[in-house]
Amino acid sequence: MSIRIAVIGAGVMGADHARIVAEDLPGAALQVVCDAAEDRARRIADAFGAADVATDPRAVIARADVDAVLVASPDVTHASLSLACIAAGKPVLCEKPPSQSSADCLEVTEAEVRAGRRYVQVGFMRRFDQSSAEMKAALLHGALGRALMMHNFHRNVETPAADFTADMAITNSAPHEFDVARFILESDYVGISVFQPAILTPRVGPVFMVLETAGGQLVNIEVNNASYGYDVRGELVGEKGAVSLNAPSYSRLDAELHHVADYAADWRPRYAEAYRRQNKAFVHFVRTGAFSAIAANAWDGYCAAVVAEAGVRALKEGRRIPVEMSPRPDFYTG
Amino acid sequence: MSIRIAVIGAGVMGADHARIVAEDLPGAALQVVCDAAEDRARRIADAFGAADVATDPRAVIARADVDAVLVASPDVTHASLSLACIAAGKPVLCEKPPSQSSADCLEVTEAEVRAGRRYVQVGFMRRFDQSSAEMKAALLHGALGRALMMHNFHRNVETPAADFTADMAITNSAPHEFDVARFILESDYVGISVFQPAILTPRVGPVFMVLETAGGQLVNIEVNNASYGYDVRGELVGEKGAVSLNAPSYSRLDAELHHVADYAADWRPRYAEAYRRQNKAFVHFVRTGAFSAIAANAWDGYCAAVVAEAGVRALKEGRRIPVEMSPRPDFYTG
Amino acid sequence: MSIRIAVIGAGVMGADHARIVAEDLPGAALQVVCDAAEDRARRIADAFGAADVATDPRAVIARADVDAVLVASPDVTHASLSLACIAAGKPVLCEKPPSQSSADCLEVTEAEVRAGRRYVQVGFMRRFDQSSAEMKAALLHGALGRALMMHNFHRNVETPAADFTADMAITNSAPHEFDVARFILESDYVGISVFQPAILTPRVGPVFMVLETAGGQLVNIEVNNASYGYDVRGELVGEKGAVSLNAPSYSRLDAELHHVADYAADWRPRYAEAYRRQNKAFVHFVRTGAFSAIAANAWDGYCAAVVAEAGVRALKEGRRIPVEMSPRPDFYTG
Amino acid sequence: MSIRIAVIGAGVMGADHARIVAEDLPGAALQVVCDAAEDRARRIADAFGAADVATDPRAVIARADVDAVLVASPDVTHASLSLACIAAGKPVLCEKPPSQSSADCLEVTEAEVRAGRRYVQVGFMRRFDQSSAEMKAALLHGALGRALMMHNFHRNVETPAADFTADMAITNSAPHEFDVARFILESDYVGISVFQPAILTPRVGPVFMVLETAGGQLVNIEVNNASYGYDVRGELVGEKGAVSLNAPSYSRLDAELHHVADYAADWRPRYAEAYRRQNKAFVHFVRTGAFSAIAANAWDGYCAAVVAEAGVRALKEGRRIPVEMSPRPDFYTG
Repeated sequence: MSIRIAVIGAGVMGADHARIVAEDLPGAALQVVCDAAEDRARRIADAFGAADVATDPRAVIARADVDAVLVASPDVTHASLSLACIAAGKPVLCEKPPSQSSADCLEVTEAEVRAGRRYVQVGFMRRFDQSSAEMKAALLHGALGRALMMHNFHRNVETPAADFTADMAITNSAPHEFDVARFILESDYVGISVFQPAILTPRVGPVFMVLETAGGQLVNIEVNNASYGYDVRGELVGEKGAVSLNAPSYSRLDAELHHVADYAADWRPRYAEAYRRQNKAFVHFVRTGAFSAIAANAWDGYCAAVVAEAGVRALKEGRRIPVEMSPRPDFYTG
Repeated sequence: MSIRIAVIGAGVMGADHARIVAEDLPGAALQVVCDAAEDRARRIADAFGAADVATDPRAVIARADVDAVLVASPDVTHASLSLACIAAGKPVLCEKPPSQSSADCLEVTEAEVRAGRRYVQVGFMRRFDQSSAEMKAALLHGALGRALMMHNFHRNVETPAADFTADMAITNSAPHEFDVARFILESDYVGISVFQPAILTPRVGPVFMVLETAGGQLVNIEVNNASYGYDVRGELVGEKGAVSLNAPSYSRLDAELHHVADYAADWRPRYAEAYRRQNKAFVHFVRTGAFSAIAANAWDGYCAAVVAEAGVRALKEGRRIPVEMSPRPDFYTG
Repeated sequence: MSIRIAVIGAGVMGADHARIVAEDLPGAALQVVCDAAEDRARRIADAFGAADVATDPRAVIARADVDAVLVASPDVTHASLSLACIAAGKPVLCEKPPSQSSADCLEVTEAEVRAGRRYVQVGFMRRFDQSSAEMKAALLHGALGRALMMHNFHRNVETPAADFTADMAITNSAPHEFDVARFILESDYVGISVFQPAILTPRVGPVFMVLETAGGQLVNIEVNNASYGYDVRGELVGEKGAVSLNAPSYSRLDAELHHVADYAADWRPRYAEAYRRQNKAFVHFVRTGAFSAIAANAWDGYCAAVVAEAGVRALKEGRRIPVEMSPRPDFYTG
Repeated sequence: MSIRIAVIGAGVMGADHARIVAEDLPGAALQVVCDAAEDRARRIADAFGAADVATDPRAVIARADVDAVLVASPDVTHASLSLACIAAGKPVLCEKPPSQSSADCLEVTEAEVRAGRRYVQVGFMRRFDQSSAEMKAALLHGALGRALMMHNFHRNVETPAADFTADMAITNSAPHEFDVARFILESDYVGISVFQPAILTPRVGPVFMVLETAGGQLVNIEVNNASYGYDVRGELVGEKGAVSLNAPSYSRLDAELHHVADYAADWRPRYAEAYRRQNKAFVHFVRTGAFSAIAANAWDGYCAAVVAEAGVRALKEGRRIPVEMSPRPDFYTG
């Protein structure tokens, strides 16, 4: 019997999740596509053969023919929909961040703790990326010695929205790096400093962050609307060596005095396989109750939100801001 | 309702196909694993949750609860099992080559023609590899001008079997290149010359082939038990430019005065995604009757076998051998 | 008639300069090798066929048979020897930094201004590196749009000395980056922040600097005794694109499941050609009086020293330190 | 006292050699530039400060103020000018090939043997290329096991002349590969087969050669007017591993969804350093009488010409042609 999944949100991410559920997830069925705009939901539902469409997410979460929920609606709805899923006893794969407010994120963890079992998987799909897996493995297997510093570059082609601000680079884009670096280094953050070029550009230019971990490492993050291509790079530097991420590349062209490899225009080709693996882990979790050892949970979502808030302050105040977190509940240990 | 698939052959390839069917093919179910050695079949069936095991492939093909067949048994059985599938009206995904005898391959095509519809998809999975797809696209989109020459390097770590011969490099390994070059260039072969280093080595060393196509291109193929890693390379050279395959690589390490990327020990990581896509195309074919525009059919299998036979003669006689093919039935056109 | 050059200092750098003068500089002759340790001077002189050896650098500078001086003695002697050359009316190519004291560097510029002509070329050889030249050209030709941010990685295999400190990473290693980034961006620095991992390691670990330029760019510099190899990387990120340095690499090896390129153990192979070009520019300057448009002058040396001093304070005080410079004399303009 | 060099031929190669002699060769002076067209000689002489110009090469060779000769005139003059140099007792660095006629090449070796000492260095500059040196070193140091096969790709942007023929690809371009592969493998050739695509193109398309060595290796060579860029590649495949040439590359650009490295339009940037090293070795030979252990001698020139002649026959007759060489005089051994 297939796991019947409701996808909430029929934007770019929702459409992609609907496609993965419908076409690339054995044991899963696309049961409902839900969006405030019914025609948008309908378009996605028709494209991928969903059984039904809906416009009210809470009603969808309550449906008896929905086993699990995939939340890909706007960020501001993530926390309340996650809470609704917990209340309904439905596992939820919630796109990152669970909320841009760390208080809201904390509330989700508290609800989960009260419920006494895991419900929430957060969509930090980079943990499932083969590159990041190999980086973590290189560290674990001792090839690098102790980790000292991590460099992260997160470059988009276009600002996602006309009113995209430097704050949003920190709260919307950088959480991917906050999470994956914390996942690989297995250490929380204790401080963050933020820099920006003083040059005024039509788009938000690079935002550069230097974070310190409790383990004593530095984590540097550039978030940039770089215009030349979607380009995520990373390097973990240890005492004895360093490991770098490769973006998969399948061919290269020689023409007109150039040797050329292409960039994608957005993140989807780069992380297609990571999304597939992540969603497969979610289906496995729904079926067996065993939460993936790799996936991000609600607490991981909270951690990323706390750092983002400190980062926004660091940018505003032009100084290092300490990262102060609630104590981790035992529920999220091990 | 899932397509119920029987996997015949529980060796390395059979195990891999069983895993793909069980874990990575939405809409497919692993119904039976069949192997002459029942314990081997049982091991694979248990690992991937097959409904049943069997030892007699013909009986399996006849079963009412089997909708389609995946043949991954030894090469010598491919043709007869494909014929059995055609006779039983069951679609079959047959590992390459359909037979090392071009006459047997031809017989399969004739049976299919008589049956009046497609049944046989041949497992030349490279056609589904993203690298090869991008090479073909570069040619089609005009980036190269007309194709002039194609270089292919097919390097394995170990000789597949103790009694592996140079003939087998031509009949067992090179058919991947025979097929994918023909697929990309869309032209049949007219001649083949074969060279080998005169150095005696414990293993079969490189075999080097130069083929000419009806379209006037040269296709060079090195098959080599190169020992250093599984490494497939290819380059298509045109009048205006050239396109090269990249093997996907996910990370690289800096340590001990070296900058290092790893090779896999065999073909599975390199073509994992290609196998998945190929098998997905097969399931789509089974469900809809629409044969994939990319997949190899029985005629493509015959073509590869004819070239391999000419290659074996060219090696033996030390001279160029023309490739002579039966006329292509209209059935396989378009 | 060849330019007769005295090399002062017969350590690693002095030996290398003596070799370049003797073997790779048309129009130059290695006249004297001078070192406090005469046997060391003798060894280098014999190896490269110098006419004479000496132990007193001031006497060497005064010799009538010495046309120009190459200072490669310990850093603390650079400024006073440069002053002596100016006093003697002899052009001098002085290894970087002219002094670790910006006040001493300023004194050299003042002496030169008083003398009314250029005497001092500073050995920031990276300006002559083909990689850096191509980075600067990419910016000038508009391929990047306006420059926004520059990333620099300067990794050595071994700490140069047992008592190497984090301060020295800033005052001894980073000046290469301070200078070359300023050369490429054509802008002075206005501030510097410095970070270090909190992990204690036997060697000085990475020191990470974030500088701001008057032009509004960020310049990030990692100096690291990285142990895995001598590895200098750099990337200039602009509004429209980015350009990265390549280290020249001449071959790669496939063996034992690895694809391997080698790192050098120190900077000499990486910058051999840059040193040769730099010294050639110096000989041209000596012969013609025309100071190279690329080479660093005494003022450039002062600028790097000012930034280094601010960096040492930023490290000590754990906060951003503004970079405050004397006004640039007209003498050094244009 | 500088070695006074006459450069004969003021075309592209002659101009380049004149520049190297004048600007990059310590201990050498550009004494005369000689060309049948006096204005062309004058232009080069003026550009690089030659002492004199001339139009009669034989008179130049005889001049008392010329210590050594660099022959860069048209191929058909190479042999007779080399003979003139031997007769005059002047060392000569002769551009490859010494002659396209193996008989003429043999005559040069015979003259040299009679003279009883080495005079002729042949301009196969690839032997001095760092890439080729590292390939040879990898083989010598055992990283590859025994050599089995070598792949060579020699791609030019433009056909050198309007009447360039496939024969000329073999006699004019491929000798570089004939020589450097023989130098690295340390084995003569015993046979050659030649292939060409059947497609008619406005320019000479690829010519593909398969050679066998006495040592039992295969050597494959593609010569191609590939149009996309000057691109020389090579790979040596051994029993245990493989080593590949890298073209030096100094930067790369990210812009407009592309990651781009540039190709040069001709061979000069790729081999600038090799030419410099080669010419330096020649000056050393002239000064000391010690012929470089790396440089090609007259016998090496003969060997390349013999193979080229066999290659032209193989192309014409469409079959493998054995390579038959005169016995090597003891004079050229060791």
